[in-house]
Amino acid sequence: MAKDKKKKILRPKALPPKGFRDYFGAEVVERSEMLREITAVYHRYGFDPLESSAVETVEALGKFLPDVDRPNEGVFAWQDEDDSWMALRYDLTAPLARVYAQNRNDLPSPYRRFAMGPVWRNEKPGPGRYRQFYQCDADTVGTASMAADAEICAMLSDTLEAVGIPRGDYIIRVNNRKVLNGVLEVAGLSGDDKDAERGIVLRAIDKLDRLGLDGVRALLGEGRKDASGDFTKGAGLSDEQADVVMGFMSAKRDTGAETCARLSELVQGSDIGAQGVAELEEIASLLDAQGYGPDRIDIDPSVVRGLGYYTGPVYEAELTFEILDEKGRKRQFGSVAGGGRYDDLVKRFTGQEVPATGVSIGVDRLLAALREKGRINSTAKGPVVVTVMDRDRMSDYQAMVAELRDAGIRAEVYLGNPKNFGNQLKYADKRESPVAIIEGGDEKDRGVVQIKDLALGARLAAEIETSEEWKAQPAQKEIARGDLVAEVKAMIARAAE
Amino acid sequence: MAKDKKKKILRPKALPPKGFRDYFGAEVVERSEMLREITAVYHRYGFDPLESSAVETVEALGKFLPDVDRPNEGVFAWQDEDDSWMALRYDLTAPLARVYAQNRNDLPSPYRRFAMGPVWRNEKPGPGRYRQFYQCDADTVGTASMAADAEICAMLSDTLEAVGIPRGDYIIRVNNRKVLNGVLEVAGLSGDDKDAERGIVLRAIDKLDRLGLDGVRALLGEGRKDASGDFTKGAGLSDEQADVVMGFMSAKRDTGAETCARLSELVQGSDIGAQGVAELEEIASLLDAQGYGPDRIDIDPSVVRGLGYYTGPVYEAELTFEILDEKGRKRQFGSVAGGGRYDDLVKRFTGQEVPATGVSIGVDRLLAALREKGRINSTAKGPVVVTVMDRDRMSDYQAMVAELRDAGIRAEVYLGNPKNFGNQLKYADKRESPVAIIEGGDEKDRGVVQIKDLALGARLAAEIETSEEWKAQPAQKEIARGDLVAEVKAMIARAAE
Repeated sequence: MAKDKKKKILRPKALPPKGFRDYFGAEVVERSEMLREITAVYHRYGFDPLESSAVETVEALGKFLPDVDRPNEGVFAWQDEDDSWMALRYDLTAPLARVYAQNRNDLPSPYRRFAMGPVWRNEKPGPGRYRQFYQCDADTVGTASMAADAEICAMLSDTLEAVGIPRGDYIIRVNNRKVLNGVLEVAGLSGDDKDAERGIVLRAIDKLDRLGLDGVRALLGEGRKDASGDFTKGAGLSDEQADVVMGFMSAKRDTGAETCARLSELVQGSDIGAQGVAELEEIASLLDAQGYGPDRIDIDPSVVRGLGYYTGPVYEAELTFEILDEKGRKRQFGSVAGGGRYDDLVKRFTGQEVPATGVSIGVDRLLAALREKGRINSTAKGPVVVTVMDRDRMSDYQAMVAELRDAGIRAEVYLGNPKNFGNQLKYADKRESPVAIIEGGDEKDRGVVQIKDLALGARLAAEIETSEEWKAQPAQKEIARGDLVAEVKAMIARAAE
Repeated sequence: MAKDKKKKILRPKALPPKGFRDYFGAEVVERSEMLREITAVYHRYGFDPLESSAVETVEALGKFLPDVDRPNEGVFAWQDEDDSWMALRYDLTAPLARVYAQNRNDLPSPYRRFAMGPVWRNEKPGPGRYRQFYQCDADTVGTASMAADAEICAMLSDTLEAVGIPRGDYIIRVNNRKVLNGVLEVAGLSGDDKDAERGIVLRAIDKLDRLGLDGVRALLGEGRKDASGDFTKGAGLSDEQADVVMGFMSAKRDTGAETCARLSELVQGSDIGAQGVAELEEIASLLDAQGYGPDRIDIDPSVVRGLGYYTGPVYEAELTFEILDEKGRKRQFGSVAGGGRYDDLVKRFTGQEVPATGVSIGVDRLLAALREKGRINSTAKGPVVVTVMDRDRMSDYQAMVAELRDAGIRAEVYLGNPKNFGNQLKYADKRESPVAIIEGGDEKDRGVVQIKDLALGARLAAEIETSEEWKAQPAQKEIARGDLVAEVKAMIARAAE
């Protein structure tokens, strides 16, 4: 059938794969500036950079992604020539565990490392939800000390303030998986045969933000019907059991000490629960001594974190200011960073206990938050554009940009078709150029050039109404060729005022 | 059979996939500093950053890799859920063509962009040959002007000098595919039925470095037997045809003008060849006017570049100093950057001609070259380590590092098991710490701390022979707790002298 059709040229579609996107100009600059600010804090805390390969063996990555309901478990994977499976990393923690296990005899112990870069998730793309995004992580491997967890939380607080989130606009909430396990034990949900129920309870608590207390309560019992009529099966807990879990979720009090006291009551009789509460108390007291009060870092039992590998303290940074969502409704911006302790991740490789804890900052979300609040002052600036009046004198124009660049000024010659001069100025506008340079044959003969203040020109066009004002503030002037660099410098400085 | 064996725990191997590696500490810092220097030059030339997705559709990437002898054409590819094929980018040029085609109505024209990041090749890994490596590219899309090609070459020259390759240690060689096509036409190798022969000729010329003139000559004729006895089939050219091609390869003269004159003779009768020579002349004259002489950028007919998409000027930066190879033999370091004009790459998507030209710097090779020459002064420095004498006083130690960090000093508390103090000092050594701080209970009571100059200590241990000298230059001293920041600052400054 296809053969009968007239053959036509099949062109590839000029699109990235579904769920992927590109970043242009200022977006790239802003992100790299933010990454530099974040890593400066990490560096000051003594963390060392690590860049692991983007590709890992599937067995090294393991299966720890939440809500695994897709055939290839949320990762992009393929087979190598020798039939072994490899995959793109889905986070920076699983690769760290592999790197540490591989190099444990050479790395310092404890090993503080930071890493930044893209990670990939084979998830259903949606609005604002991409399959490649940046993370910027800091982890301490090789110590069970709660001082490591407290340090990560303090550093996260410092980092958020360093990139421009003022105190009061964020809160770092800390919980402990052991407390949750203790609560489940008290509720009669320990034991290997209760795996499924525990999973449902964990996911239900993680959805508190979205479903509210009633929604979570429904999921602890028989199940929950959502607005569309879809039914989600619940954990099937009895009322008594559900009450214990609900009590845990509303155990937060005004101070860390009070919250810990309340949690202590709730896990009475569970060793693991008591241990979790003791760890929380230690973190709270360390942070308190360092002056990180509950206005910055707070104990909050409603934090559970989705990833499967956490074993102790878990923490989450949330931005607390309100934004308008896509439907114009007010909502809190939400989580921009999270992490916790994962004492068993290295053990997968080595068989030996290697305690570890760390945090991951969702760089793209944090950038979005800063843009939302107008707190990004991009240093991205357009170049000076030297226009081409006479295409045989390219080397004259090249000499101008060379002089400007030598003086540290960003500058370029117009390289399109120079015939239509209007197009050259339109190009300069599109490039957000501060200044355009014009040198026709007449100017060349007289040893002068025209320089045009494009920033001022745009402002004048918008503001000035009388032609007298135009004359008083000329956006274009003639200068001696020899004064080019000095005059352009002065014009750019004036535009920046 | 396997079932009979006793079940044992299968642990994942703590290794990256074959051909991948990790980068630690100073390596990461040095690369990101070099990328910053490169992009600063690109920025000053008016190029804008672009970060395209690492994953592309297979159809968008196209098939342009050289020496394609592997089943999946040199790329890592897999199928999405909807059965469409996606792949990791193998360079930054093919994605640029896709991005430009997609956004051509919104981007400035011409569009100068730079990009940096990892690319992936599904090739046989070997020593020093990895399947993930960094590139840093600059391209100008939307102009056929040779001024764009000349600009890229000049910028490449500036960039190499900016990262620390002095003039005289590199050469940028420029050629033109059209001249080569003209030569092939003169040799009677034009026409669609000669595709295979032309491919063999092109690959043979590209191997000049390795095979020498005789080896290339053999490949132009019947073929070549290498040292191991393996035979590579040649293009089967007659002696007359081969002479034309060999003449082309040795057409280089002392100046660009002379080389162009010689090339002009060789392509007599071929329109495309004449056009190529005219382009080379234009580039040479533009560069000459800007002061980039043949000591930096030279016309050299032996450059062809492996990639299949080049259509006009091609260029390559080679480092000319000698290094010792793995077998201890002297050899030139070789190519660290290359590029050229690819006027048809965007057309694949749009059907319309969009001329473009650009360069790619092999960042990892350039870094290796700088390391080889001892020209990297890494700014990577270890942190001050505050040791733990008394584990109940963690918050005292935390307060010290907080004070140091507030003063801009990199500092950390030892977070391992503090029992063995020797281990703490060994840790500080491994971290390349300049200073260690010690505060036991006794010091605490007296309001003092011990500070230990680890850099000096190491130097003293190596240099000093008498105990009098030890006393005269104490590597450890007792200071008032209140003077901590000032004294540590002074000690670090002294160490840096």
